Amino acid sequence: MPQEKLSDAIDLSHHLSHVSQARITSPLKGLQKYFGKPGIISLAGGLPHPDYFPFSSIGGDALASDAFPLELSKESSTLSWFWSIFSGSKGKDTPLHIPKYASRNDDLCLARTLQYSMASGIPQLQKIAKEFTDKVYKPAYANYTTMMHVGNTDGWGKAVLTLCNPGEGVLTAEWTYPSAVSMMLPYGIKAVPVPLDGHGIRSDDLRVILSQWNESARGMPRPHVMYTVPVGQNPTGITTHAARKKEIYDICVEFDIIIVEDDPYYFLQQDPYLSPADRTTQVPPSSDDEEWISQLAPSYLRFDYQGRVVRLDTFSKTVAPGCRLGWFTCNPVFAERLERQSETTSQAPCGFGQTLVASLMLNWRCEGYIRWLKALRVQYQQRRDFFIDRLHAQFHLELSQATVGVWEGCPVYHASFRRGCHEQAGVVTEKCSVDNNTVTVFSFTPPTAGMYIWLKFHFENHPSYNVLDPQSLEMKFWIALAEAGVLFGPGSMFAADKTANERRDDVGHFRISFSNAEYSDMKKAVSIFASVLKSFYEDVSY
Amino acid sequence: MPQEKLSDAIDLSHHLSHVSQARITSPLKGLQKYFGKPGIISLAGGLPHPDYFPFSSIGGDALASDAFPLELSKESSTLSWFWSIFSGSKGKDTPLHIPKYASRNDDLCLARTLQYSMASGIPQLQKIAKEFTDKVYKPAYANYTTMMHVGNTDGWGKAVLTLCNPGEGVLTAEWTYPSAVSMMLPYGIKAVPVPLDGHGIRSDDLRVILSQWNESARGMPRPHVMYTVPVGQNPTGITTHAARKKEIYDICVEFDIIIVEDDPYYFLQQDPYLSPADRTTQVPPSSDDEEWISQLAPSYLRFDYQGRVVRLDTFSKTVAPGCRLGWFTCNPVFAERLERQSETTSQAPCGFGQTLVASLMLNWRCEGYIRWLKALRVQYQQRRDFFIDRLHAQFHLELSQATVGVWEGCPVYHASFRRGCHEQAGVVTEKCSVDNNTVTVFSFTPPTAGMYIWLKFHFENHPSYNVLDPQSLEMKFWIALAEAGVLFGPGSMFAADKTANERRDDVGHFRISFSNAEYSDMKKAVSIFASVLKSFYEDVSY
Repeated sequence: MPQEKLSDAIDLSHHLSHVSQARITSPLKGLQKYFGKPGIISLAGGLPHPDYFPFSSIGGDALASDAFPLELSKESSTLSWFWSIFSGSKGKDTPLHIPKYASRNDDLCLARTLQYSMASGIPQLQKIAKEFTDKVYKPAYANYTTMMHVGNTDGWGKAVLTLCNPGEGVLTAEWTYPSAVSMMLPYGIKAVPVPLDGHGIRSDDLRVILSQWNESARGMPRPHVMYTVPVGQNPTGITTHAARKKEIYDICVEFDIIIVEDDPYYFLQQDPYLSPADRTTQVPPSSDDEEWISQLAPSYLRFDYQGRVVRLDTFSKTVAPGCRLGWFTCNPVFAERLERQSETTSQAPCGFGQTLVASLMLNWRCEGYIRWLKALRVQYQQRRDFFIDRLHAQFHLELSQATVGVWEGCPVYHASFRRGCHEQAGVVTEKCSVDNNTVTVFSFTPPTAGMYIWLKFHFENHPSYNVLDPQSLEMKFWIALAEAGVLFGPGSMFAADKTANERRDDVGHFRISFSNAEYSDMKKAVSIFASVLKSFYEDVSY
Repeated sequence: MPQEKLSDAIDLSHHLSHVSQARITSPLKGLQKYFGKPGIISLAGGLPHPDYFPFSSIGGDALASDAFPLELSKESSTLSWFWSIFSGSKGKDTPLHIPKYASRNDDLCLARTLQYSMASGIPQLQKIAKEFTDKVYKPAYANYTTMMHVGNTDGWGKAVLTLCNPGEGVLTAEWTYPSAVSMMLPYGIKAVPVPLDGHGIRSDDLRVILSQWNESARGMPRPHVMYTVPVGQNPTGITTHAARKKEIYDICVEFDIIIVEDDPYYFLQQDPYLSPADRTTQVPPSSDDEEWISQLAPSYLRFDYQGRVVRLDTFSKTVAPGCRLGWFTCNPVFAERLERQSETTSQAPCGFGQTLVASLMLNWRCEGYIRWLKALRVQYQQRRDFFIDRLHAQFHLELSQATVGVWEGCPVYHASFRRGCHEQAGVVTEKCSVDNNTVTVFSFTPPTAGMYIWLKFHFENHPSYNVLDPQSLEMKFWIALAEAGVLFGPGSMFAADKTANERRDDVGHFRISFSNAEYSDMKKAVSIFASVLKSFYEDVSY
């Protein structure tokens, strides 16, 4: 049972930045009661008349919420066009139609949704966000606020300006979403990297960093904000589950830290990867929504009895990135300041986007959206499996349990090939057995959420290792691969603290996204990758 | 003829703020050539597959660009429903339809427009903005940049962070758009008010302020940025024409000022107001687009041979506020920094909005959009005329030429009523002649652009003038009017420097918007206004 409301004894207002505190509440604040009064004639706002909106209606054809299947399908995995046909046969698209005028106040209509409107979002979407948050994330207190924003990147930017002053540090994973760091740096706010293991941000390291914080040595006060992508972490793909989250939350209570939970990949949680041989029968997702929800890693909100979590949800990965739409869930004090910030910057999210997403959600209803999410998860699992299967086909992969480092506690695959083995252009085949001439070239742990596979390269096995630093080797390989027609994400761009990238054993990664490419292209890409990699490790000219 | 390109001798980069300078260029900057390469397989970005966008298509029914007439119509002016019928009979709506996939690269399709995309906007819209800017604003140099943004309020916020450091001042009109000031204050950037006259920001006062700037007395360095709404100024409705703009631009060259031109009302430029008796024949707008464009007050861009203008255009007043879409026009150096800022905040404008607005514009084409704008201008002129006609009907209005103050050089109406005159509840009629018992209650100049009438109240004629300060009287009247069912914009909220609002002769205004209310409601509102005003000026109990 959640608390009825946040205890008044918990005051988090000391976390508000100077910029945030200085934001002005509308001078009409005390007069709001007049603005909603029935029958009142307002000549106050600079609103165009909706007759002049040049759209009589907008709409679209929406896929059915069950357009995608809940089962993995082997046949289809290499044929991307299969899905179009399949989804076409699954059921008819539903036409959405939103007129300019509607008689009922609750109905979507362009006269309202394309007009100036509240920065916190149109009422229909606010209601959807609130109900969904309630049902899925189950926050630990009842009087939390949900409020629309224009995507998690902007949401994070607003959180930074709300919470942080120049000269402060923000705790982040050692490898993290680059834009989150790029947003802070111009304001003189730096990332404070915390090591990762297979369960996400390490709680033991977090405690050490905070308890041993030396302000003068660090050149900044002890951080009071943490940025985290806890599910399908960008770039490592790691997911933080309940036990670790609870540990981290408790440390944040102890050291008075605000947790900003940027969670775009939440609904891309997948079953553990099994090699093709072991992948026999699949357990379909639970048809009971509550049970399905309970199997997902919980949000930090579930533990948040003190209101110190700012959660960022987005439709970018579940509907489309172009929605530029998502929502904050946080305590009312922070929410009020975030809303003031939106009013003088982005204002309301785009009315076209709000209308169409709200219309889709009202059509699907909450059950339909959950059905959609269940299938989406399967789609990404299928893509992940396909990609890793191709690595299996192209490399000799050995599985072991990691005991140290980023993947501690996780199953890790080590990819190797035999020097001088040329049976098949650049490709290690079964015939090419593993022995002393074998070179381990990269390792990875199959992600259980998100869009990314994070490859750790073993540049220590590269002939030029003693001549070139790993960061140069990383870039050289990136360019060699790009020249051959395949783009990976270079690992160094995800370093929370790029100045610390000289540490040799920490550098040499690539982030591979299996979310977007066609299956046939993924197959081709892995083949090219294998070929370029073999040349790269055998070429002493680098 | 515009200059081919900005002279390299003009370096404006010293205007960039510390925050802006510290913004990071993508670490992949030097590697961009690979990203657009035909046939390359990208596994770099965290892009969802477009098959998973749950829209097969979006669309809408667009009004014809000539849905509204070019002539003022007396008959229709009080019947808002007339227009719906009229526009319905004018021509059929055009169906817009944007599919998920398109075979041609140039065609709009959701697979691209709802995907992650450039912060500067989808190519189709960038092209439209560039062509339109070229045709209509005719910038004085050729290599300017146009780049989409998410509305002028956000555009201004980004300009502030790009140009200003904490502790600086920004030149603004003495009465100005409140959000523009509210955005700056949290960053320690203050408005430096410049007096207005009937032509906008006074160039003589501007020169005095800049030439006599005393840094220690003012507590800040001489401003290097000016914020201006030059057409249908918010809140005063004043428009700055070519001669004054040239004067101001030259002063800005002399004192090295960047001009941020926030111009949402540009296409709501109207003919001068004539009283109903004088309004006989109407000259229809020129059918020649070039001629029509040449009759509009030019943008500051027309004079901008040094690249010191950042122009903000928006679709908010010409399509709908919910578009949250507009564009910057400025020099390439500022544009690059603004783009970096968008990348880590709002990112691209909403894909739904970009798609539908682009689709509308591609359907209308530039000529159609101009036809739409010509009619829109007439619509707002009709609304303005209607509102002022109602003031004529309710008050005794005397016309004179203002020689001092905000309306210097403009025709000004003074509204009066006779104390103790009660022939018709609260309303001055013909029978109520003007004599020594006459009280002048407010003055205004009919705007020639925009959405607002700015009333100056003569609180010196109020019985409580010696007891209450004008700001209190302003608020008391606002509440009395609100209690009676009408909302105006209280003038004090538009003061650039609210701390200076104690000057008695400067305070006591209301901003009335004639843009949104139904005609019948405007009529009713003026009647209520007259009644409340009369009671207010006769009531000594305030």
